[in-house]
Amino acid sequence: MVGEPESLFSEEPLKTRIERHHFDRLLMLSDGVFAIAITLLALDLRLPKHWDGSAGQLVNATGRPLIGYLFGFGLVGAFWFMHRRMFARLARVDLAITGLNLLLLGLVGLTPYVARMIAEAGPNRAIPFYLVAVASVLGTIALIRFWGAARPQLLHRGVEAREWVIDGAFLIAAALMLGGIGAWSIANHAPIPSNGFAAVIVIMAVGKQFFRRRRKLQTS
Amino acid sequence: MVGEPESLFSEEPLKTRIERHHFDRLLMLSDGVFAIAITLLALDLRLPKHWDGSAGQLVNATGRPLIGYLFGFGLVGAFWFMHRRMFARLARVDLAITGLNLLLLGLVGLTPYVARMIAEAGPNRAIPFYLVAVASVLGTIALIRFWGAARPQLLHRGVEAREWVIDGAFLIAAALMLGGIGAWSIANHAPIPSNGFAAVIVIMAVGKQFFRRRRKLQTS
Amino acid sequence: MVGEPESLFSEEPLKTRIERHHFDRLLMLSDGVFAIAITLLALDLRLPKHWDGSAGQLVNATGRPLIGYLFGFGLVGAFWFMHRRMFARLARVDLAITGLNLLLLGLVGLTPYVARMIAEAGPNRAIPFYLVAVASVLGTIALIRFWGAARPQLLHRGVEAREWVIDGAFLIAAALMLGGIGAWSIANHAPIPSNGFAAVIVIMAVGKQFFRRRRKLQTS
Amino acid sequence: MVGEPESLFSEEPLKTRIERHHFDRLLMLSDGVFAIAITLLALDLRLPKHWDGSAGQLVNATGRPLIGYLFGFGLVGAFWFMHRRMFARLARVDLAITGLNLLLLGLVGLTPYVARMIAEAGPNRAIPFYLVAVASVLGTIALIRFWGAARPQLLHRGVEAREWVIDGAFLIAAALMLGGIGAWSIANHAPIPSNGFAAVIVIMAVGKQFFRRRRKLQTS
Repeated sequence: MVGEPESLFSEEPLKTRIERHHFDRLLMLSDGVFAIAITLLALDLRLPKHWDGSAGQLVNATGRPLIGYLFGFGLVGAFWFMHRRMFARLARVDLAITGLNLLLLGLVGLTPYVARMIAEAGPNRAIPFYLVAVASVLGTIALIRFWGAARPQLLHRGVEAREWVIDGAFLIAAALMLGGIGAWSIANHAPIPSNGFAAVIVIMAVGKQFFRRRRKLQTS
Repeated sequence: MVGEPESLFSEEPLKTRIERHHFDRLLMLSDGVFAIAITLLALDLRLPKHWDGSAGQLVNATGRPLIGYLFGFGLVGAFWFMHRRMFARLARVDLAITGLNLLLLGLVGLTPYVARMIAEAGPNRAIPFYLVAVASVLGTIALIRFWGAARPQLLHRGVEAREWVIDGAFLIAAALMLGGIGAWSIANHAPIPSNGFAAVIVIMAVGKQFFRRRRKLQTS
Repeated sequence: MVGEPESLFSEEPLKTRIERHHFDRLLMLSDGVFAIAITLLALDLRLPKHWDGSAGQLVNATGRPLIGYLFGFGLVGAFWFMHRRMFARLARVDLAITGLNLLLLGLVGLTPYVARMIAEAGPNRAIPFYLVAVASVLGTIALIRFWGAARPQLLHRGVEAREWVIDGAFLIAAALMLGGIGAWSIANHAPIPSNGFAAVIVIMAVGKQFFRRRRKLQTS
Repeated sequence: MVGEPESLFSEEPLKTRIERHHFDRLLMLSDGVFAIAITLLALDLRLPKHWDGSAGQLVNATGRPLIGYLFGFGLVGAFWFMHRRMFARLARVDLAITGLNLLLLGLVGLTPYVARMIAEAGPNRAIPFYLVAVASVLGTIALIRFWGAARPQLLHRGVEAREWVIDGAFLIAAALMLGGIGAWSIANHAPIPSNGFAAVIVIMAVGKQFFRRRRKLQTS
């Protein structure tokens, strides 16, 4: 790990050592935050008072928080997934990527708060805020993508900067769409109905599929 | 760690780099979630109000939560143990194993909730839900085993896919038994008495011993 | 990671192995504490009771806690940043640096408490305590810098001990200034007005810029 | 990290790979638990209601919890320190050490609970329980030492098993003394006065100094 070179490869120059240390530490911090955000979500799952041991009472009392847990868990898991895919292709990090990543972690840290909205106010009223949160994260990831594309020395030699621009553009489009819907809904006090949300999910899933297929064609 | 190759082994190709990054990150996230789930369990250990410093009052007030802590701790520890044994034999992870592992972490994150059931409602009423939780995790681990057996390129060269099928089958059997008992008990509002639970534990322990012995014979 | 050498490089002598283990473990513990401190900050973000789904009610109820979150997040992020920059240049750690680092982690662990002050009492009253907290951390980092400068065998070969003395002196000056303002304000019950705080921030930012530029000149 | 060998050193045999994976994962889990136990301690630091911004009111309301934080922090820090020193000299872990380490983590996870005792009931009444907690951890570490001494293949080649026996014996003696005092005090409802506790601390510190000096003589 980070401490190896000074003992095993004492000829490692300072610049290489710093780059590696900065990269490793960023990932250790990030995975820590992802892991805690996932696990804290379950803290809001409280038992009903005077629980009689029946499943029905449990579902009544914990039903909404459980939905919040599922949404929050899916959210953090998806962000972690995107984070992993992106950093697997980065060779080193600079100040800008560190800053953007800290912003990303700050937004991930807010996920339990958004999940609590679903738990306490129900999905309908919480979905607009959920969409805005998703949009902020997607936008931050898009900025990291653009920055990486603009500084190809940060990318692994095998990665094409052009690919990162396309990925970033796709993410920005998704962020604008989701954030726009969410912000519009918040401003107009118009809760997004469940079927409207389902439609957004379907559109995103189809877009992602399309995106994936295109990527596979590129890499093969 | 994950950041080494790009500096130290700059000839590492992109595909290798991505595989290694994906594997490492999955384990960092997993161990983070395991560590937090274990430690959060102790958050429910609250002191009695107006504690007079006596051990008796402490046991009265914290007795059940302490049992919940023991059960939860044993549970997370056992899951971590199985997780470690399994991933020590995996050479790389794909999308399916990542997804199944995230599902597993989501279930592990629920452990404090189940431990709280024991803490608040006592073991008798909580055991059925505890069994269902254990069964879900065992089932998820079994699915990872089957998937690994079906894609031998994911396994370390020294591991036999056949062994993973047997392990998976054993886990599925245990999951079905425990989950079935738990679900039946929940559906029929029939709390599982302590001796019934002890019988299940004994059966499992004997089965595991048998299983272990057979495995040792195979590997020697 | 820490466990590698005993299997891969079995010729690694005990002294090297211990040094590497001590260094790696210190960073794993530190990044864990940083990650948790960041994420716990969001635990105080509670929804308004009987939330009607409007953004206005949300901002009214969570406005101050959100400011506390931002301040706390910025604080932990900045400390982590300084920590990473410093340890990237350390080759090994001794007992003194381990002790100072534990002190640093203890102070970082108090950040959620300081952020709660901002959340509950508003920035004006909390800023003096915030300044004292920042000053303590900067002072601890300065002590590590001085210690490293006094024991050059702890530093990477490419690092100049003189540079560490200058960095440490700068940090001590900042700590004394901020801590002095904070302590004076606490002792005199004189809340620091927002524009006074802004002035401090501007002075620090300018000083940091100046500092950075000078460092870049030195390293180039 | 753990994922490296399968890609970089594909000739690593399964046995080596499993040993290394088991060792690394144990440390990742342990450092996660240590980091969280440290940081959770600060969760009990609550502000006084209707805080007027004065330091006096703050100390009145948070004084005891702050003492609890200091005690708990010192405890977890000392345990982590002993853990790091011990595992730096271990080459691999087996089932027994994994089990003992999980027990150790379970006890470390209880530290916030003991710190809460100090926070809520004051040091005098909480010290006996604190002593019992310290004794349990020291005893567990002693067991790991004895086990390591009995299976020298677990130790780094440069470590003498005899040294581990001496360390273990010292730890067992300290555990019996502290645990005995604590248990006696709990059983007899005899709170340990502050000066009595100070005497214990001084005795331990002197013993540790003596111990350290002897060790340095041995290793030099």
